[in-house]
Amino acid sequence: MKNRLYFDISKNNIEAKKKLFENIKIEQDSIGYYNLPNQDISSILEYASSFDGNIEYIVVLGIGGSSLGAKAIYEFLKPINCTKRKLIFFESTDPISIAHTLSQIDISKSHFLVISKSGTTIETIAVFKYIYSLQNNHEYFTFVTDKDSPLEKFADEIKAKVFNIPANVGGRFSVLSAAGLLPLALTGIDIQAILDGAKEIEMSFFNDGYIKEILLNKAFFYAKNHTAYHISCIFAYSETLRYFCEWFVQLWGESLGKKQLNSAFNVGLTPVGLIGPKDQHSFLQLLMEGTRDKTATFIKIADFKDELTIPNISLPYLESLDIINKIEFHKLINMQCDATFEALKAQDSIPLDEITIKAVDGHSIGELIYYYELLTSLVGQLINVDTYNQPSVELGKIILKNKLQKLKGQQ
Amino acid sequence: MKNRLYFDISKNNIEAKKKLFENIKIEQDSIGYYNLPNQDISSILEYASSFDGNIEYIVVLGIGGSSLGAKAIYEFLKPINCTKRKLIFFESTDPISIAHTLSQIDISKSHFLVISKSGTTIETIAVFKYIYSLQNNHEYFTFVTDKDSPLEKFADEIKAKVFNIPANVGGRFSVLSAAGLLPLALTGIDIQAILDGAKEIEMSFFNDGYIKEILLNKAFFYAKNHTAYHISCIFAYSETLRYFCEWFVQLWGESLGKKQLNSAFNVGLTPVGLIGPKDQHSFLQLLMEGTRDKTATFIKIADFKDELTIPNISLPYLESLDIINKIEFHKLINMQCDATFEALKAQDSIPLDEITIKAVDGHSIGELIYYYELLTSLVGQLINVDTYNQPSVELGKIILKNKLQKLKGQQ
Repeated sequence: MKNRLYFDISKNNIEAKKKLFENIKIEQDSIGYYNLPNQDISSILEYASSFDGNIEYIVVLGIGGSSLGAKAIYEFLKPINCTKRKLIFFESTDPISIAHTLSQIDISKSHFLVISKSGTTIETIAVFKYIYSLQNNHEYFTFVTDKDSPLEKFADEIKAKVFNIPANVGGRFSVLSAAGLLPLALTGIDIQAILDGAKEIEMSFFNDGYIKEILLNKAFFYAKNHTAYHISCIFAYSETLRYFCEWFVQLWGESLGKKQLNSAFNVGLTPVGLIGPKDQHSFLQLLMEGTRDKTATFIKIADFKDELTIPNISLPYLESLDIINKIEFHKLINMQCDATFEALKAQDSIPLDEITIKAVDGHSIGELIYYYELLTSLVGQLINVDTYNQPSVELGKIILKNKLQKLKGQQ
Repeated sequence: MKNRLYFDISKNNIEAKKKLFENIKIEQDSIGYYNLPNQDISSILEYASSFDGNIEYIVVLGIGGSSLGAKAIYEFLKPINCTKRKLIFFESTDPISIAHTLSQIDISKSHFLVISKSGTTIETIAVFKYIYSLQNNHEYFTFVTDKDSPLEKFADEIKAKVFNIPANVGGRFSVLSAAGLLPLALTGIDIQAILDGAKEIEMSFFNDGYIKEILLNKAFFYAKNHTAYHISCIFAYSETLRYFCEWFVQLWGESLGKKQLNSAFNVGLTPVGLIGPKDQHSFLQLLMEGTRDKTATFIKIADFKDELTIPNISLPYLESLDIINKIEFHKLINMQCDATFEALKAQDSIPLDEITIKAVDGHSIGELIYYYELLTSLVGQLINVDTYNQPSVELGKIILKNKLQKLKGQQ
């Protein structure tokens, strides 16, 4: 991948960048995601290669960090037809959505992956209970959870297969652990290619490669201006990146939206995921003329490996649009990306950068994922928050449990 | 629908609210969307009832205001199985997405709706040229566009049927015109129910009903605090409202993200669409602990008309979750909504309100749509922007045309 920054980085302090880099290297000992590109995936690959040939649907029961990562990669790669099984997600307690998802699968040809780091995620267990009432053969279930979690103990009890998420890998940083790789491998996706992409960014960052300066400079700019430019937009020019945007929203929002460690001030950068050219007809006006509180990162795909072309047809009264004739769609969408970028660049005070990935393939999405994980860690360090926890989602869970207990008491 | 506000409206000036209401009444003469609930839809209904019985796919070629509205309503109603034909959208120039959408339809059983207000939308015409090269029988096409647009003239030339969008109805306010109603009616959806819902809000607002005070108070709060609380979140507790959120993003962002009329200052409210409970595991942490720049409107569905229930299964080691046994999923999701709402209410300085719609039906989505259109108009008046244009999306189009012309010159 390439990444060009179009904002002023000349005032970034060299010593401070050095210190930031040292701090991240220290984090490597305690934060597990950094090292995931180098993990041994043989147990996942073996499991996938020995998998039941009759299974057509890999069905994930998971929510948040237990679904967004695998979904981002699967939906990115799906159009290039590299999967032999469908990947389906139950990620809501919405009964309409549950019924709709059920209608998309054949239970007798489905294998269910119950993914929950803590092992007690209420949405996931609720749906699991329902599925388990329809199919209670343990061979149709695999569990992905923390070591010694209640869910692992349950899985052991019913003699089902378990994969663990390393204890020091948080949910939203877990896509390159079994939580993301197992579902992808079971659909037939080449997970080594994804890790190789991540590895390339890891090596480049930690071994003084080209991405190190870029990431440090970008993180410094974002952090230094986090009160002014506190909305971080991704503008990705391909529908295939829609769920990557959703993954980014969790990673960025949940990691950086925190009370500061020193002051307890509420800080955070608000993530927004946009898809071009569609959102040129939606969000672009706000980006162009609205309050100057947004940065935007354009992501484009260099080679769509696609030859779909606009036919050479001239339509009466629409001759002014003959200029698009004989142009490949992939060329058109990238020109739209460039034109929108240039239009924004012509405005005052909109910090922009541009990422170009090579193609719709595992390597490229692996790069993007690791790049954004690193950027999140860097900005988190600089704005002085605990990037890896999420203390404030607990309160709602406690209130819910109280409500449920009260309801039980009334029954 | 019900709407409760949980922020301080006591300081709203009565005279100023009166003036605002008067200004909106004046707008009614020039801005067309206000009166759409009262339009005569007999020509649409006739066309739909006489429609070719072999057609199984209604395929919209449109982008932005020409697709988001119909998609929001269709995807909301789809799970209740009230449609007799599938509604499919081409809304990108992404070749991967075009190929994927093509694979979902049978062209010989598809009727294409080419929707473009101006009639010269580059994405729409590009895809149309491609489809037209595969199917050039005019009977398989219907056009929705402004009167006398180049696209209408083309449609007349090939003797295809045309419906018009009223000239004074802007794209993002056009869902209740033929742009939205025609595709919905052709799938078999009861469009009168949608208009009836919109009408109920219209009557309530303009005839001193319950929604008038609520909308005026909410608009005043949003406008008065538009520099402090400039991110407007919708947190909808049902997957069915996912595309309603996308429609809202365009409506809100493109209408309010403007240079102010008096000062040319850049202003705007940034829309964010969230879906519960999923985004409890994504965006909620940021909402709870992040910068105090966000309002949140919770939307819940009172009656899911669904009895899907969590089975009474106790799982070894997971007994603590027996509290969800025998609870209907629709009850659980609404309790999750309430619990999250209460958790946010317990924080400082997060302005909240709650909308409850009755059910997943046409009436309810009609209400929601008209409610948000009115709110947009009201806030636009108060922050002093031209709510109904979108001047800044033009620059990118001009740059693109220059690039295309240059490319032509090189060929």
